[in-house]
Amino acid sequence: TTPSSARASMGSPVASFPYLPPANRNLMLDLLAAVDRRLNPSLLPSTVPPGVLLFQNPQGSSHGSVDIRSGSPSSSVDFVLKSWLHCKLPGPGEMNTASLSAFLNSSTDAPHLMVELIQGGPASLVLVIDLLPRRDLVLHPDYLEEFYQLTDLDSPRRDLEELRLVSPYRSPSLFVRSILSPTAVALTVDCGEEAAAMERIISGEVGAAAKKAVAVWLERCAGGGGRPVVEEEREALERRDGLIKRKIVETDLVANLPRMFGTEVAERVVGEIQKVFRV
Amino acid sequence: TTPSSARASMGSPVASFPYLPPANRNLMLDLLAAVDRRLNPSLLPSTVPPGVLLFQNPQGSSHGSVDIRSGSPSSSVDFVLKSWLHCKLPGPGEMNTASLSAFLNSSTDAPHLMVELIQGGPASLVLVIDLLPRRDLVLHPDYLEEFYQLTDLDSPRRDLEELRLVSPYRSPSLFVRSILSPTAVALTVDCGEEAAAMERIISGEVGAAAKKAVAVWLERCAGGGGRPVVEEEREALERRDGLIKRKIVETDLVANLPRMFGTEVAERVVGEIQKVFRV
Repeated sequence: TTPSSARASMGSPVASFPYLPPANRNLMLDLLAAVDRRLNPSLLPSTVPPGVLLFQNPQGSSHGSVDIRSGSPSSSVDFVLKSWLHCKLPGPGEMNTASLSAFLNSSTDAPHLMVELIQGGPASLVLVIDLLPRRDLVLHPDYLEEFYQLTDLDSPRRDLEELRLVSPYRSPSLFVRSILSPTAVALTVDCGEEAAAMERIISGEVGAAAKKAVAVWLERCAGGGGRPVVEEEREALERRDGLIKRKIVETDLVANLPRMFGTEVAERVVGEIQKVFRV
Repeated sequence: TTPSSARASMGSPVASFPYLPPANRNLMLDLLAAVDRRLNPSLLPSTVPPGVLLFQNPQGSSHGSVDIRSGSPSSSVDFVLKSWLHCKLPGPGEMNTASLSAFLNSSTDAPHLMVELIQGGPASLVLVIDLLPRRDLVLHPDYLEEFYQLTDLDSPRRDLEELRLVSPYRSPSLFVRSILSPTAVALTVDCGEEAAAMERIISGEVGAAAKKAVAVWLERCAGGGGRPVVEEEREALERRDGLIKRKIVETDLVANLPRMFGTEVAERVVGEIQKVFRV
């Protein structure tokens, strides 16, 4: 039996994104490698059971994988979550998602990391890349400056939005929109007949934006940025984080997994995530 | 001498938007009439001096007008501010802005109102219409629901964004982006050769969005929505409001007025606004 930390590493079948188009897969592997390289010493081995590391629906037409590693007690990392879903659509298409999120605990107020690629077919992609603020940015302009202004996170967003095939993506949930920062990449790429353009955009501007977000997060957030949080503030910060985590479970998982995988599998996967999220 | 409350009313030269294209002018007059009709009993007469009610640059190529009425002591209205600027651009063009903002005081946490039309020529318009949240929306999902979800403020935004000539407007200031709600209309309308389309869009979708925002604000915000704010919370709310007001002065006024009107006029106008804003 392979130790769970090895199962969860890059080379494992779980973290290999077997169904993703090559450009998406290469990008996700690059991002995971950057996170692993930097955070490996701060992360505990994965304790995710095999039936969550890899799962499918009874018909075998939908596949998915979720892996989570919690931060070690001395680290500011709460958890790193990576996942993918693959699902045959009615008709010729298929849907492939890939995500990487990394949350910090309440020893710091530095932002969380979120990267999500949702490809509804070779020509259509929804993309969310952001450092999620953990403070009211209106009340904390210094926070805005430290993590979003001085890091120039707006510049890869702008490069992406200037592309002809790109348009804004607005989550139907106003709450989800509210958790995003003002430099969030939240876009739809619709290549229509120019399907080859998708690969170019993913390797190009999408890759640049995602790598920049991960690098800034590793350097400034997981790397010790943010104000130290005094004991009295921790509870409020945890409550705020909890609201975000609960909403992610609700909108990303509870709304989609049962439909794709049936109730039993969905409950197993959601339950495991709720355990780590403590929600 | 005309009493200032009459000077500030719809029929006066100040609030008549003399330089605006007809569609913009009709819209602004409709919005002001709705606000006046509802709030007149709650507002004190304007005390804005004539040189701020109407001003121009020494060359006479730029004109502007600012009028402000504070809320009466028993009302939840802090102030209503209306303004326009007109400026000949180098070359054949001219710029016309029109704005209406209405802030509440700390007896309530209900949102402020902001409507801004900035027309850089017959074919190009920047548009910001929003109810500015006064709470961290992540911490207060009930606030999001009360003012933004149940009021369906997202629907006129969506109608506008679906138009072919419309694209998102991102303020260069990340702070300004942070003060907007997730249903904010922040758009550029660029009609290019189809200049006649501008009038149609202003009378149509822009008008619908602005009228809806004003109606919701009058009904639910100035009309007594929001949680009553307990004494201990007032200071925090005022501090947050103060940060927003200071930033509006800084980005909208201090950055633009001196260039358009010269230092002396700019200082007079900005000083008057700072007095009402208490910043």
